[in-house]
Amino acid sequence: MLQKMFAKHTTKAFAAEIRDLSQMLADMSGLAENQVAHVIKALADGNPETAREVVEGDAAIDSMQRKIDERVVAAIARRRPAVAGLRDVLGILGIASELERIGDLAKDIGKRIQTMNSDDLTRGATLGLRHMASAVLAQLRDVIDSLAQRDVKKAVDVWAGDQDVDRLCAVLSREVVGRMTQDPAAVTFGIHLLFCTKNLERIGDHATNIAEAIYYMVEGQRLLGERPKADATSMMTI
Amino acid sequence: MLQKMFAKHTTKAFAAEIRDLSQMLADMSGLAENQVAHVIKALADGNPETAREVVEGDAAIDSMQRKIDERVVAAIARRRPAVAGLRDVLGILGIASELERIGDLAKDIGKRIQTMNSDDLTRGATLGLRHMASAVLAQLRDVIDSLAQRDVKKAVDVWAGDQDVDRLCAVLSREVVGRMTQDPAAVTFGIHLLFCTKNLERIGDHATNIAEAIYYMVEGQRLLGERPKADATSMMTI
Repeated sequence: MLQKMFAKHTTKAFAAEIRDLSQMLADMSGLAENQVAHVIKALADGNPETAREVVEGDAAIDSMQRKIDERVVAAIARRRPAVAGLRDVLGILGIASELERIGDLAKDIGKRIQTMNSDDLTRGATLGLRHMASAVLAQLRDVIDSLAQRDVKKAVDVWAGDQDVDRLCAVLSREVVGRMTQDPAAVTFGIHLLFCTKNLERIGDHATNIAEAIYYMVEGQRLLGERPKADATSMMTI
Repeated sequence: MLQKMFAKHTTKAFAAEIRDLSQMLADMSGLAENQVAHVIKALADGNPETAREVVEGDAAIDSMQRKIDERVVAAIARRRPAVAGLRDVLGILGIASELERIGDLAKDIGKRIQTMNSDDLTRGATLGLRHMASAVLAQLRDVIDSLAQRDVKKAVDVWAGDQDVDRLCAVLSREVVGRMTQDPAAVTFGIHLLFCTKNLERIGDHATNIAEAIYYMVEGQRLLGERPKADATSMMTI
């Protein structure tokens, strides 16, 4: 009886830890989403000042990850959760690591923007780039919503939607390579644009990893089947 | 007294878990090192068959990571370790995730090799590429040794050595871009080579992340100071 009460007390205390950690994770998600939205705006507007702010802003995400890491260790050591609780808390740890990598990718895009000149950026901000960037941002926003609401259906939609991002990435990459082949002066700029495109595609991949983690936390099992993949940039032969 | 004995028993049992997990991690490191060594050979020899084997071989690394993940959850739930033990076991979890990403990068290089033609590959296998590839492989081997021996000094050397890899990456990237600017026919091939170079550089970054994790596991504190960074590819203006 005493043991049962103790278990219940632990469970309650642990639920409070999960609540606090979820709030920290929501704050971290907000930072990451903000960074991605800003760097996409900087890319579309050719604004090196916004890009600089994104590069500087990454440190806040890294520091948030370290705080979550430490809090997770403390929570497990203090509350000694059972398997289900552990999955929850390790899921939070994994999602924080995905968000940290999203931040790194936004920062890398920010650095590249600062070295491109604004004429190039204006020429580069094609419909293809806008399409892809808004698709990635939508995926990221949806997965963050699904995390806040523990909405598995939405997480599965994000997971399935990654192939649309991959397809837009392939189209855009072909467009950029075509221009580089025709105009040697466009080569260096084109390379930066290709890496930005690839970084956006990888942000989409991390959103999908988060979707898988949410599914695992809520359902206690892995999303079945091979992830739908339409990223053909490594197969590009044009 | 009973509690102390129990704690001791738990500690001993937990040490056995850590030993088993360390063995699994050593096996996984071996797989990852092997994949990287093979894909580098495929790149230097222009061998699509070896590249295909690397692409297929990645599934074994992914499956190993899932086994380690599950084993970590079981070990914590069963043994309820204190903070130091938790750090160890979460360090193992983090390193497994770095190794999985190293495997993904080797696989991506393997996919690209399969789409390049062998003449291009022969032309692309320059001294610069060989230098960089062997530097990355050496970093990976050193960090795996340092993990097996819990050798903090060696881990710090890997951490500090990452800037050499970054420098070689920058030199090689400039070389490839130079050729692309002069010869429009070299553009598509050059892009694949640039992404392979970037992937090798990222494998070096993951080796450095593993070095940081080893340091944290052994010393109980983070490596001080900003990581030495000489990756200038995102700043490339030539």
